[in-house]
Amino acid sequence: MKEPYDFHNPNLLGVAEQIKRLRPLRQAMEQADLRAALVSSPVSIYYLTGRIYRGYLYITVDNDAPLYLVRRPTILHGPGVHLIAKPSQINETLAKAGMAVGEPVALELDTMPYHDAMRLAQALGMEAPEGNISPLLRACRAVKTEREKDMLRRSGVKHAEVYSRIPGLYKTGMTDIELQIEIERASRLEGCLGIFRCAGLEMEIFMGNVLTGDNADAPSPYDFAMGGAGLDSSLPVGADGTVIRPGLPVMVDVNGNYTGYMTDMTRCFAAGTVSPEVEKANRLSADICAGLAGMMAPGTAAADLYNRALEMAREAGMEEYFMGHRSHAGFVGHGVGIEINELPVIAPRSRDILAAGNAIALEPKFVLPGIGAVGVENTYLVGSSAPGELITKAPQNIVALD
Amino acid sequence: MKEPYDFHNPNLLGVAEQIKRLRPLRQAMEQADLRAALVSSPVSIYYLTGRIYRGYLYITVDNDAPLYLVRRPTILHGPGVHLIAKPSQINETLAKAGMAVGEPVALELDTMPYHDAMRLAQALGMEAPEGNISPLLRACRAVKTEREKDMLRRSGVKHAEVYSRIPGLYKTGMTDIELQIEIERASRLEGCLGIFRCAGLEMEIFMGNVLTGDNADAPSPYDFAMGGAGLDSSLPVGADGTVIRPGLPVMVDVNGNYTGYMTDMTRCFAAGTVSPEVEKANRLSADICAGLAGMMAPGTAAADLYNRALEMAREAGMEEYFMGHRSHAGFVGHGVGIEINELPVIAPRSRDILAAGNAIALEPKFVLPGIGAVGVENTYLVGSSAPGELITKAPQNIVALD
Repeated sequence: MKEPYDFHNPNLLGVAEQIKRLRPLRQAMEQADLRAALVSSPVSIYYLTGRIYRGYLYITVDNDAPLYLVRRPTILHGPGVHLIAKPSQINETLAKAGMAVGEPVALELDTMPYHDAMRLAQALGMEAPEGNISPLLRACRAVKTEREKDMLRRSGVKHAEVYSRIPGLYKTGMTDIELQIEIERASRLEGCLGIFRCAGLEMEIFMGNVLTGDNADAPSPYDFAMGGAGLDSSLPVGADGTVIRPGLPVMVDVNGNYTGYMTDMTRCFAAGTVSPEVEKANRLSADICAGLAGMMAPGTAAADLYNRALEMAREAGMEEYFMGHRSHAGFVGHGVGIEINELPVIAPRSRDILAAGNAIALEPKFVLPGIGAVGVENTYLVGSSAPGELITKAPQNIVALD
Repeated sequence: MKEPYDFHNPNLLGVAEQIKRLRPLRQAMEQADLRAALVSSPVSIYYLTGRIYRGYLYITVDNDAPLYLVRRPTILHGPGVHLIAKPSQINETLAKAGMAVGEPVALELDTMPYHDAMRLAQALGMEAPEGNISPLLRACRAVKTEREKDMLRRSGVKHAEVYSRIPGLYKTGMTDIELQIEIERASRLEGCLGIFRCAGLEMEIFMGNVLTGDNADAPSPYDFAMGGAGLDSSLPVGADGTVIRPGLPVMVDVNGNYTGYMTDMTRCFAAGTVSPEVEKANRLSADICAGLAGMMAPGTAAADLYNRALEMAREAGMEEYFMGHRSHAGFVGHGVGIEINELPVIAPRSRDILAAGNAIALEPKFVLPGIGAVGVENTYLVGSSAPGELITKAPQNIVALD
């Protein structure tokens, strides 16, 4: 059997890296007066252990060594691992491990279903949940460690490599979805893991979004920057089978999850020559990215980035088309990492302040009626000073498909 | 713009079909003494309207016409549609529409995050959530209407069509993931929507599972019947890059979502000649499917199906390998529809009773050490009498790849 990673070790991060992630969380718990937390979502367990298991990670403010309460797979073993069959065994397991039992334990209340949260709280001896660890986890996850930044950089390299092959995938007469399917295949062959993790129930997507023509202007129920009607009413987003017409842009925004951490990148392609206004919109988008990247320093308000983007769009006379036309997205960027919708949020009312270690996707896009979506999206890492480090290095011009 | 469906109509089912789905739900609400419910998950909104929007569907026991409280897309209009910008507007909107306000309103408490449920309850004038509509929805969704059965049948036809092309996709020396990528592409070109909906946070998957060799015996944290190490610790399930060896089975269990309703189907393939024990295990699996299908009549206990499957495995001396070897799945089948894990659950402690209209996937599989996973999976519709209607009609033998 090929063993690409240690199947038995509950902590694939190693002790030092795990502590780098746990310490800021423990400090935040201290400040929020949360003494203990039980983490249970696949995403959070992956963040704090480097692997996914079914069960719980028990964290206290006092201790760098968490407990692994594992339901599946049962082959996990090592210091701190306790196999349990059901939540009702959590308290006895904690007591045996010398932990205080009966005190409030914070749960992931932003993602855990109500019914599960009530049952888990009761198994822990609480009448109802007390203490929400979700906002603290989200805040900590927004500041990437060096290892996480490397995983993002590696995703960015593969992501750009796949985009460089897109012109070779195009054939005259293709529809948006036919081109998307070839891009999906090229991505998977390059190592894309496929899964596209979004926090919450308000985003559903498959491998990303390829938009051309007026389909870009079809409003979607989801919280993505661009819409699209999709192929079926059961998944109303993205490509809808529109034939790619020469002279019209094709916007490609597909999954960059090559390492468990995903970059977000958009580029435009076209068969034949696009109109000057399309060139102008694309150049403006790249200019806004560069302008905002130049502001990416610790301490900058996320709202300032949004406002600058809107100002640049307005100065260019393009505000009407900025982030949509019939329907406008209320943001120009967002944090990325294990999920596509992390902090900070680059929006007018965002209170987020940029910090070193943030990974931020900027997507100042335009929807031109009768033409389609135009613009680029890049992922940046925030360092100790501006500008942000661009990690999605594909060329930003409109790339010829033929 | 191509308009594959009406972008403006909140109810794509039509009134008659919607009533067919709402009436059993309203009856169940009556019995559970729930007077009103607010449905909000994409899956439930799709079930009750045939489309996905962001917002709420307000249902009362007294009325066949629900209210559509729509946040996005704002282009929805028609009778019963009310655009709202935030949950705090729900009560005033309901009052304007002549609904009783301030009474308990059931929510989807099995899937809605705790934090959202608390906020929504408070917006509705309750201190905390009262009344859970999730189990009622799950029970109603388990009984498919004629239209839903047709959508499942159509998915089954396309699903089988794709499987028939798998031998043509194989090349000597391929790995499991390389073959999977070609199957993914063929599926997408046939119209597979890609998204693989699973209820809850305990299943994550991309397009399905291709397993060969001992990777089949690698335990996974997820609630799938079979495991696999996966390619990365961030998604520990499925293909792991094992080279497909002549004489060993390749189990293919990939996404059958062609219509919004998904069939579940597994078939085994092999290059070269497999051993008699592999042939025996595959035949036993098909025999168990046929045996259980013969019991599929309204009123049959789901647990009886499981017990019969286990008995047949035992009689054949294959119990040790039934539903896994190092780790065993605790079920042999499950309901399918909009999600892959619907009711009924075919498991030893299941209290589910089969009903006409159930769509059930049976997957009696075996993991043979040193060889891999063997067996078939089929989706059936339960009619007014046994046997169940097979809707995944690909040949059930081990199909030659070369």
